[in-house]
Amino acid sequence: MNTIGKILTLTTFGESHGPAMGGVLDGMPASIEMDLEALQRFVDRRRTGQSVGSSSRDEQDRVEVLSGIWQGKTLGTPIGFVVRNTDARSADYDEIARCYRPNHADYTWDVKYGICDPRGGGRASARETVARVVAGGIALQALEILGITVEAEIVEETGLEQAIVDAAREGDTLGGIISCTVKGVPAGLGEPVFGKLHAQLAAAMMSIPSVHGFEYGDGFDMASRCGSEVMDRFVKRSDGTIGTETNHSGGIQGGISNGEDIVMRIAFKPVPTLMRDVLTIDRDGNPVTLHPHGRHDVCVLQRALPVVEAMAALVILDNYLIKKTNVL
Amino acid sequence: MNTIGKILTLTTFGESHGPAMGGVLDGMPASIEMDLEALQRFVDRRRTGQSVGSSSRDEQDRVEVLSGIWQGKTLGTPIGFVVRNTDARSADYDEIARCYRPNHADYTWDVKYGICDPRGGGRASARETVARVVAGGIALQALEILGITVEAEIVEETGLEQAIVDAAREGDTLGGIISCTVKGVPAGLGEPVFGKLHAQLAAAMMSIPSVHGFEYGDGFDMASRCGSEVMDRFVKRSDGTIGTETNHSGGIQGGISNGEDIVMRIAFKPVPTLMRDVLTIDRDGNPVTLHPHGRHDVCVLQRALPVVEAMAALVILDNYLIKKTNVL
Amino acid sequence: MNTIGKILTLTTFGESHGPAMGGVLDGMPASIEMDLEALQRFVDRRRTGQSVGSSSRDEQDRVEVLSGIWQGKTLGTPIGFVVRNTDARSADYDEIARCYRPNHADYTWDVKYGICDPRGGGRASARETVARVVAGGIALQALEILGITVEAEIVEETGLEQAIVDAAREGDTLGGIISCTVKGVPAGLGEPVFGKLHAQLAAAMMSIPSVHGFEYGDGFDMASRCGSEVMDRFVKRSDGTIGTETNHSGGIQGGISNGEDIVMRIAFKPVPTLMRDVLTIDRDGNPVTLHPHGRHDVCVLQRALPVVEAMAALVILDNYLIKKTNVL
Amino acid sequence: MNTIGKILTLTTFGESHGPAMGGVLDGMPASIEMDLEALQRFVDRRRTGQSVGSSSRDEQDRVEVLSGIWQGKTLGTPIGFVVRNTDARSADYDEIARCYRPNHADYTWDVKYGICDPRGGGRASARETVARVVAGGIALQALEILGITVEAEIVEETGLEQAIVDAAREGDTLGGIISCTVKGVPAGLGEPVFGKLHAQLAAAMMSIPSVHGFEYGDGFDMASRCGSEVMDRFVKRSDGTIGTETNHSGGIQGGISNGEDIVMRIAFKPVPTLMRDVLTIDRDGNPVTLHPHGRHDVCVLQRALPVVEAMAALVILDNYLIKKTNVL
Repeated sequence: MNTIGKILTLTTFGESHGPAMGGVLDGMPASIEMDLEALQRFVDRRRTGQSVGSSSRDEQDRVEVLSGIWQGKTLGTPIGFVVRNTDARSADYDEIARCYRPNHADYTWDVKYGICDPRGGGRASARETVARVVAGGIALQALEILGITVEAEIVEETGLEQAIVDAAREGDTLGGIISCTVKGVPAGLGEPVFGKLHAQLAAAMMSIPSVHGFEYGDGFDMASRCGSEVMDRFVKRSDGTIGTETNHSGGIQGGISNGEDIVMRIAFKPVPTLMRDVLTIDRDGNPVTLHPHGRHDVCVLQRALPVVEAMAALVILDNYLIKKTNVL
Repeated sequence: MNTIGKILTLTTFGESHGPAMGGVLDGMPASIEMDLEALQRFVDRRRTGQSVGSSSRDEQDRVEVLSGIWQGKTLGTPIGFVVRNTDARSADYDEIARCYRPNHADYTWDVKYGICDPRGGGRASARETVARVVAGGIALQALEILGITVEAEIVEETGLEQAIVDAAREGDTLGGIISCTVKGVPAGLGEPVFGKLHAQLAAAMMSIPSVHGFEYGDGFDMASRCGSEVMDRFVKRSDGTIGTETNHSGGIQGGISNGEDIVMRIAFKPVPTLMRDVLTIDRDGNPVTLHPHGRHDVCVLQRALPVVEAMAALVILDNYLIKKTNVL
Repeated sequence: MNTIGKILTLTTFGESHGPAMGGVLDGMPASIEMDLEALQRFVDRRRTGQSVGSSSRDEQDRVEVLSGIWQGKTLGTPIGFVVRNTDARSADYDEIARCYRPNHADYTWDVKYGICDPRGGGRASARETVARVVAGGIALQALEILGITVEAEIVEETGLEQAIVDAAREGDTLGGIISCTVKGVPAGLGEPVFGKLHAQLAAAMMSIPSVHGFEYGDGFDMASRCGSEVMDRFVKRSDGTIGTETNHSGGIQGGISNGEDIVMRIAFKPVPTLMRDVLTIDRDGNPVTLHPHGRHDVCVLQRALPVVEAMAALVILDNYLIKKTNVL
Repeated sequence: MNTIGKILTLTTFGESHGPAMGGVLDGMPASIEMDLEALQRFVDRRRTGQSVGSSSRDEQDRVEVLSGIWQGKTLGTPIGFVVRNTDARSADYDEIARCYRPNHADYTWDVKYGICDPRGGGRASARETVARVVAGGIALQALEILGITVEAEIVEETGLEQAIVDAAREGDTLGGIISCTVKGVPAGLGEPVFGKLHAQLAAAMMSIPSVHGFEYGDGFDMASRCGSEVMDRFVKRSDGTIGTETNHSGGIQGGISNGEDIVMRIAFKPVPTLMRDVLTIDRDGNPVTLHPHGRHDVCVLQRALPVVEAMAALVILDNYLIKKTNVL
């Protein structure tokens, strides 16, 4: 349930205010050089306090690798790692422990499990994504050797700086859209029926907290176009390789990569925690007013960029490995 | 690779012009009454020749259940089934067997496997979805007992009737958007991290041929709204149950159903096969012109409705079963 | 639940007296030549009426491949297949439908599912193994290309011919031990922790009906030996390869194949159905006497040989494919 | 690859002389009371220095739970845990780093991965089992609530005290047989085809380092008995429940528990590391003599008891949860 992937699998654990977040990245091929300082820098991109509107909770997010990497190389064994939670202020959560905050997971977790660690959102906190970034950062280093790069960027203006300042002043929050491009993916990755490459990418991206939409290539725009308008014509290039003139298909055809850039867009809803009074109910159904407190992001998009890149990297590398099994 | 689901799993097989399409639905609980005639009627909704612009290939699509159902009830054992291919005209595919049709899977399959059955698109054909509809139809009958209903409808005008007639006249094709609503889902279904209910739904829907986008609740619109605009306030209803005043969240919060209608939208690209001359290249990279032939849909949306419903049903029922394991 | 394997997966279905047994073998690499007549001959080895003491039920066991193989080669797509049940005499089972036969699965299935198809044992029948043999026969053809062979033989005298004649005369039944040797397996297959090669083989063999024990190498004898007695010394052979002087380890060390013959032994209990009056109880707990009827084996070992070989082949080929993912 | 289970899954990580061993136990139901002191006591049963012939490596094996348990109760979220390696003396392993020790995994790991952490056996060390014991100890506390108990004991004399003293004097080692009994398992657990309860138990037990054989019920003895001799007659007991008079079947029929005690036996080979000079070859194939050094067990059976109990507990609890999905 807390595992993703088939050959390259990531299993994560951790509550926001528990001792640590962590994970196990299994199935990583052996003998890959790992630069742990570069990994730490990648993880740092997700930290708070580096962009306008991010939470003031100041976690150092030091990655501690416990296994699977030795003398700078992967061993082929599972890579266990933890990131300690050090700046948790659990007292902030006394009030909300008995309330259902709108657009949060309080109510649904209560119905599902009947129990939760309310401190900092517990396991439902977006802090969970730190483990994804650690694992994805490792996968990215392997992809780099293969000449594959992943880059995410914010494409929707609502997430840009002035808007965030304005929203923060109102005690309000923002969402936005992140575009992610994967370059250098060889043709032939992805499984043609249920495991279509874009279906796997969709599942991975939609599993990021706050994501409400996913599209690849021309995406939703495809729905209002004619077939003749979105046709990616094949060409033989001067170097003898085959490619397409355009890329409406977003680098994937029939669920399998075709060697063009893989392009996708991911829609994030606004942060659910407002810095305003909010009316809701408690667990007994009584009306309550929540007063603003705690430390929260106004907009998570900047911090979400490495999370998106991490998830893309995990999916692409997993499929790169699966591809090896297509021939005897 | 050709399997979806965790407890309730569907494994499918079949090439478009091979002897049969089929599948195995495993994990279906025992003692559920099954109406095989109603199942056939559901499968028939996917057949050709029932809506404007659908292919003239006339498959009877008779469902033959081989196991798992006896005397009108499920046995708890795997439900094996086949649907014979009877109206295949493989001679139609002699020409294209050596060409890469634009926006089809010809090229990517060639790179991935180095071999394919070119007749009717082989395994890459949307005919593969008939097995999904059989399995989904069985799941729907189980959901009905639980008071859960699934309904898909076409929401984008490009897929409506006159547009199809116009496109067909031009030898062109259309896509569109399907909305799908699941009513009656109890709160508490879905796994909060990688197995978020909407992530599973996204993977299932994106695995349908031609789908390029998925969103739930307010979806991509969420990205340009403020947090205060999309807040679903909790209320205690007169019957004592807890619900939300609005449903921007689309029935899922924190990856777990909250008891409201689950609402999602799925974007389909236009059918890739045009009834026009199309320039492309063959497997050796030489330019070729494909002339229109074969029997193809102008727009698949009408036929895709039961496929969407089937995939939704499989995901919801699987999560309903998984939910049972949350307590000892 | 009815699936085995990780990359190469087999999913089976079918009740003994339903329309057909069948399965889906997924993950088979593409472009492997398949001799379907040789496959049929392999499946025929499991048929009744070919050895002393086998059931008189005369199934033709014609394998019908529905997908995944075209023009004599695998396509890389799932191989769906069925074997029709043609000689079922369901009337034979009227009496037992309400009784719990000793050492059968009647009682446990009743508790688990509350419903079953009683005809011929339903899904609990050893007829289920025909699907394993079809799939295993396909895997064996792939292994042959790799120079890997699998051979099972009966090693315990209780299963030999005169003993069977004697037991049959008494209305009694026999079990026995089958040894299975896999030659030509390259070193390096198997996963070192939970997926040890011998753990996977054990699970596969123990899943064959009637199997009560599994050992590899010196097996249970190992338990009463000193470390110095069972040491397999490494040697560099004249051809430069590394091997061991002895093979107490049965070709597997640390859960991974070492290039020596993989040797294992599998213990079968006697057939549970006697041709004698048997006292038992019915579903209400009332005492009943079962009178001998139906068509049953006195000893299944001869027919089990291809089943054992099939299961070994599936496990070895799966691990051969997984091994490819150990390096980037 | 380093994961076992279906609903209740355990993923482990860690090299013997790395910073820590650890694991993630996922799928544990919510709201189960956990006594972490009792858990520590269970883990302590596996520690060295508590029985004759165990290694002098003195690990404290303090279990640090990082998530999933809060205020003494499970949260339904993954339980992450680590056990630090504190008494590793890696210098001991300089010599063997380039040698293939007989009956160890040095050679097979080298072929499989081409790299390993040689210190203390790396991931191939039986120290890996500490993570199994932590997870199994948690599962045992849940089973206790259900009235299910697991108890392993040494049954073969070669593993008893005087024999160990004698072997140690000779620099030799011993194996033995452990019997494990699970009481109180309700009827109906286990999946009837590939997931037979005894097949799952076999895979779990065979995955323990040094195990060479598994049997349940009368096991290998079954092979030399007649059907009439091993028949477990059903009886209706005075309390109205159904049971069997004898238990040759070992509590499992048709792969499903029948409510009787589950009884199995597991054969361990002798410890492969002798305290004698041993002839072998190095990675280049040159002959070398290994001199005794390091700290090793003469016999692991006493320490293996909680490992066996842990693996049994994980399998039984997993199947208990799966059973819940058999009805709608």
